[in-house]
Amino acid sequence: MRYQLYYWPMIQGRGEYVRLALEDASANYTDVARGEGGSDAMMNMMEANKGTPPFAPPFLKAGKLVIGQTANILLYLGARHRLAPKAEPGRLWVHQLQLTIADFVLEVHDTHHPLGPSLYYEEQKAPAKKRTEEFWDSRVPKYLGYFEDLVAANGGAYVTGRRATYVDLSLFQIVEGLRYAFPKRMQAFEPETPRLVELRDRVAERPNIKAYLASERRIPFNEEGIFRRYKALDV
Amino acid sequence: MRYQLYYWPMIQGRGEYVRLALEDASANYTDVARGEGGSDAMMNMMEANKGTPPFAPPFLKAGKLVIGQTANILLYLGARHRLAPKAEPGRLWVHQLQLTIADFVLEVHDTHHPLGPSLYYEEQKAPAKKRTEEFWDSRVPKYLGYFEDLVAANGGAYVTGRRATYVDLSLFQIVEGLRYAFPKRMQAFEPETPRLVELRDRVAERPNIKAYLASERRIPFNEEGIFRRYKALDV
Repeated sequence: MRYQLYYWPMIQGRGEYVRLALEDASANYTDVARGEGGSDAMMNMMEANKGTPPFAPPFLKAGKLVIGQTANILLYLGARHRLAPKAEPGRLWVHQLQLTIADFVLEVHDTHHPLGPSLYYEEQKAPAKKRTEEFWDSRVPKYLGYFEDLVAANGGAYVTGRRATYVDLSLFQIVEGLRYAFPKRMQAFEPETPRLVELRDRVAERPNIKAYLASERRIPFNEEGIFRRYKALDV
Repeated sequence: MRYQLYYWPMIQGRGEYVRLALEDASANYTDVARGEGGSDAMMNMMEANKGTPPFAPPFLKAGKLVIGQTANILLYLGARHRLAPKAEPGRLWVHQLQLTIADFVLEVHDTHHPLGPSLYYEEQKAPAKKRTEEFWDSRVPKYLGYFEDLVAANGGAYVTGRRATYVDLSLFQIVEGLRYAFPKRMQAFEPETPRLVELRDRVAERPNIKAYLASERRIPFNEEGIFRRYKALDV
């Protein structure tokens, strides 16, 4: 099957968790909005007033199916591309972890947009600073500590054991994103989560991921995405 | 099967979406943390360093399975209790809608906690006011308008057509919550989404839901939950 991925063409954003899964699986896909006329096609699909219009990108077209919500797309892909266990208990567990990552990603976004997504960062610099403090004091240790403990408890190379799942690819992206957005804070924090850092390295060395990261298909981090480098927030 | 639901005993919170599904389905369940010693049992399960420890409540014990993340629990229950289609396309679509509701619920929480969950509301009243303005100006119309359009397009009694799913139960809770937290704003807004209000009424009249709402099992809204009534935010 040839998939069509629809996501904002200039950022990694939430679409990146899907891109990493598609790339690791060597899936056949088009990143539609990065092609000519693709953004218009994406907007038209969201404005469709019949069928199953997605609320927001990313969404994936797979044959007749249109699947929205990052974690839902990964739930669909995982079962088909050996990036999640086939049996229900394992499938639900891996999905649960991905939903926890989704919660964390929203909190990352809130560090620079605590007053909401409609205002610019420049309009909310002071609250962003406060929110970022709280994020690093309590939220990062809680979330990343949770995943660190899971890797330790499973004694494996990946978060659920010996085999990589889409959750491992997403954790790679979390470490990369935090390193980009908060280089100083993350450097100070990383000794707390050595296994997660090793997991990040292991994912980066997977041949398909390595090739993807070196390609132009990987959009560089920038200040329009979820992970943004603002000097005032990285002290 | 007898289920054990684990959730904070004093609030509706995210657990309420699960409670509504269990109640509508007449499922056999215990709300563990509301019983003696239940909160300790809940904390112990989260601190387990083997198996599949949940990151946070709610989580559901179903036989040997421990399932966390509200939408994931509903994904599991929906298939078993006729609260979601059985075939994969319908199952993914209903789950996708639930994940969109989960995003909205996080934004509701941010109205009174824009600087993060670790500080009290009283420490962030001014940013809360700004965030709430933006929430009602742009986010509520976007989210509720999306669901209103879906009900209209499907020409049915419920959001995906003639049959109720767990998404309809959650939309009932969203309307109830907004009415509780922002009575003035919601009264002014409701004419924009007449079908959603009708859907809310239809859910409230479902016999099992009606009985649940009249029972002591339904915890009243309060200022510890997601939907909080703060006068300063409802102008």
